[in-house]
Amino acid sequence: MKQIRLNAFDMNCVGHIQQGMWRHPRDRSTDYTKLDYWTGLARTLERGLFDGLFLADVLGVYDVFQGSSDAAIREAVQVPLGDPLLLIPAMAQATTHLSFGVTANLSYEPPFTFARRMSTLDHLTDGRIGWNIVTGYLDSAARAMGLDAQVAHDDRYDVADAYMDAVYKLWEGSWAPDAVQRNRTTGVFADPSRVRSVSHESAHFRMNGIHLCEPSPQRTPVLYQAGSSGRGRKFAATHAECVFVNGTSKSTVAPIVADIRKKAVAAGRKADDILIFVGATIVTGRTDEEAKEKLADYQRYASEDGALAHMCGSLGIDFSTYAPEDPITMVKTQAIVSNLEAIAKRPEGPQMTKKKLVESLVLGGRQKPIVGGPQTIADELIAWTTEADVDGFILARTVTPECFADFVDLVVPALQERGAYKTAYSDGALRQKLFAGGTSLLPDRHPAAARRGW
Amino acid sequence: MKQIRLNAFDMNCVGHIQQGMWRHPRDRSTDYTKLDYWTGLARTLERGLFDGLFLADVLGVYDVFQGSSDAAIREAVQVPLGDPLLLIPAMAQATTHLSFGVTANLSYEPPFTFARRMSTLDHLTDGRIGWNIVTGYLDSAARAMGLDAQVAHDDRYDVADAYMDAVYKLWEGSWAPDAVQRNRTTGVFADPSRVRSVSHESAHFRMNGIHLCEPSPQRTPVLYQAGSSGRGRKFAATHAECVFVNGTSKSTVAPIVADIRKKAVAAGRKADDILIFVGATIVTGRTDEEAKEKLADYQRYASEDGALAHMCGSLGIDFSTYAPEDPITMVKTQAIVSNLEAIAKRPEGPQMTKKKLVESLVLGGRQKPIVGGPQTIADELIAWTTEADVDGFILARTVTPECFADFVDLVVPALQERGAYKTAYSDGALRQKLFAGGTSLLPDRHPAAARRGW
Repeated sequence: MKQIRLNAFDMNCVGHIQQGMWRHPRDRSTDYTKLDYWTGLARTLERGLFDGLFLADVLGVYDVFQGSSDAAIREAVQVPLGDPLLLIPAMAQATTHLSFGVTANLSYEPPFTFARRMSTLDHLTDGRIGWNIVTGYLDSAARAMGLDAQVAHDDRYDVADAYMDAVYKLWEGSWAPDAVQRNRTTGVFADPSRVRSVSHESAHFRMNGIHLCEPSPQRTPVLYQAGSSGRGRKFAATHAECVFVNGTSKSTVAPIVADIRKKAVAAGRKADDILIFVGATIVTGRTDEEAKEKLADYQRYASEDGALAHMCGSLGIDFSTYAPEDPITMVKTQAIVSNLEAIAKRPEGPQMTKKKLVESLVLGGRQKPIVGGPQTIADELIAWTTEADVDGFILARTVTPECFADFVDLVVPALQERGAYKTAYSDGALRQKLFAGGTSLLPDRHPAAARRGW
Repeated sequence: MKQIRLNAFDMNCVGHIQQGMWRHPRDRSTDYTKLDYWTGLARTLERGLFDGLFLADVLGVYDVFQGSSDAAIREAVQVPLGDPLLLIPAMAQATTHLSFGVTANLSYEPPFTFARRMSTLDHLTDGRIGWNIVTGYLDSAARAMGLDAQVAHDDRYDVADAYMDAVYKLWEGSWAPDAVQRNRTTGVFADPSRVRSVSHESAHFRMNGIHLCEPSPQRTPVLYQAGSSGRGRKFAATHAECVFVNGTSKSTVAPIVADIRKKAVAAGRKADDILIFVGATIVTGRTDEEAKEKLADYQRYASEDGALAHMCGSLGIDFSTYAPEDPITMVKTQAIVSNLEAIAKRPEGPQMTKKKLVESLVLGGRQKPIVGGPQTIADELIAWTTEADVDGFILARTVTPECFADFVDLVVPALQERGAYKTAYSDGALRQKLFAGGTSLLPDRHPAAARRGW
């Protein structure tokens, strides 16, 4: 049976996906500024043999709903928000196998310094780092960084392709595998003839220098990507090793998964060079009944305004101007186009309206929870892997960290009983853990390999 | 008696100030990619009640000596080099009081994202963060970041003044002291009317947005600066709370210290609003004799080429083209002008020549070690505080971490016996520990305070 892969989904902030949960008496997300909060979470996830903790990020605020950022600030919708990279070293020190997928926006940092940050993390974690490649979707971020507005959606992916080429040169091509000698006797730390300056010149940026870091366990971090627009999928099929998709049903996600795998093969890669994760929110208890009671308890704290602030910001549309029966239709924006497509074009029911959309915000977010006891949840997760061909899940938090502790204590054993989940970590770097039989480095058929040349 | 302040001086690399020491059998600096190496160092420093660990950084390689980066790469002279910020969270988790001063170059990162990184660290460390403000001095860094050459020396400080104003607005002005309510009952996390967008528009950059982080314990991190040129001292007198100076003798340093204090008063601050640290390399043992033997042992590993690669890079002059008797004179470069001034204009002896300069590289660096048993070292450090009016020292490593363990075990007790060193940490944030009677925030007479306005 397919071994289910698990990432926890979190963010260095209070409200992440399910808005309002911080008001629940047992929720601890308001402790996000404390290291103990994060090391405790990391230990819980490692106890449950999670493959990784995945950290989201944005660089602006959600200011589309009601034409201001007021609702986002009041309800703590991804603001305040700390840097995600800086959480990782302490969590890495507290764990041995858990990996860390970190979101970093390539639109606003030169490849040279960004490559150093990721290599440093890959060293310090002994190869447990992944990078979620994003290009941003908030105009507010672009303004904060000194632009008038963000670059148009598809153009952002052209910049991203150039950026990837630049960081591949640094990670894969600057230091030969035998460059570092660390030889106390000869006094040679590294052989200068095996270290070279790499350069990149494109319309988007210039770079000329040697990579500041010696080769880290994985060199290029495991590459994650979540874009599911047409252009986003093409980018993912070329570069990504793990892809996150969202979707309300197996039938809508299955063709997306098949398309990504097909595009990967067309790009000269193998269909299973890409692991596909689907976003999920799970509420569980010892029994189905207990899980339903828990859901009802959590629901009392859900924030509709918070959910709308988040959704409107990520779609670039202000639903506060819609009447209840107004239909949700496709509108061209420069934000996350595929999400709107998923809402507007849902095949499973009648035309989506503002009223129905609001009613669907069960826990303060657009992601509908899967609710049930351990066997119910295990059945549903396994059904996703067989019916939609996904490899695993990225689990959003509800009331945290109890939602993860519940999953670890109740669902993980049920999955293990079915033979659908590992009973121990395998050794090696993240890439070796994810792709059995491979090495810690990207395979030769990945485009990064073309930048080695030693 | 004045209480001596201590920072350890280190860098996320193998060779820092004294080049070649990594070849010593007991040196562990080649473990710099491992978290345990750093948490162990942090615990040793906290055991010795060090005020802080100070982390240097550069963004390029030393490629001036012999017209290439070969010597730097071969001898591991600050290359390979990891990101310093990412070391801090794990060390913070391993300690309670030790602070972390981190070097970050403001020339290459927009204020908006940089301010978030520092606020995140200030939160995670509970207010134990300082920022060493640098503008860079390597053309190789500028080229790596896509420029043809670095900005001229004095112009870099104009950019820096504008940058400080932008980050002060984010740190001090964006969130009112009472903005964050964290109120589970009312459901208000933060009051939007008490959070405001700040903007900056100058020739150097534009910015418009709210600071992404809620106020951290210190808001603005403790500000460190090391520029000792005329323009650098003016910048320090305006902004810095801790200043690092270098100098071979108390008589050359004393007037620099007096000048910085005078300039601070002229800028509307108090003379003791600035703590002044002098760089020092110490080799100690249980007796003077044992310390001398240790020096002789260490000296066998010193790297002359490494020292020259470092020195030539930071001065922007290639001494490999000099004959032994060629005099060292002032040459206009865009690198660290004050260091060359210190070499060329040394009042204590005859004209400096290439040969004499090389002979002065005792341990693989330009900083001459202070050598002796605990009482000798204590005498010398106390003499610096009385004769040159410095407040403390920033101690470069030799053979590490044994050099810091030696200092903690031998010199700290000797200083404590004289009443010249604390016997326990005081409570509070770094700023409160450094400036008795103050709060965790910058005083009202500091220019950052003008950006509060709530």
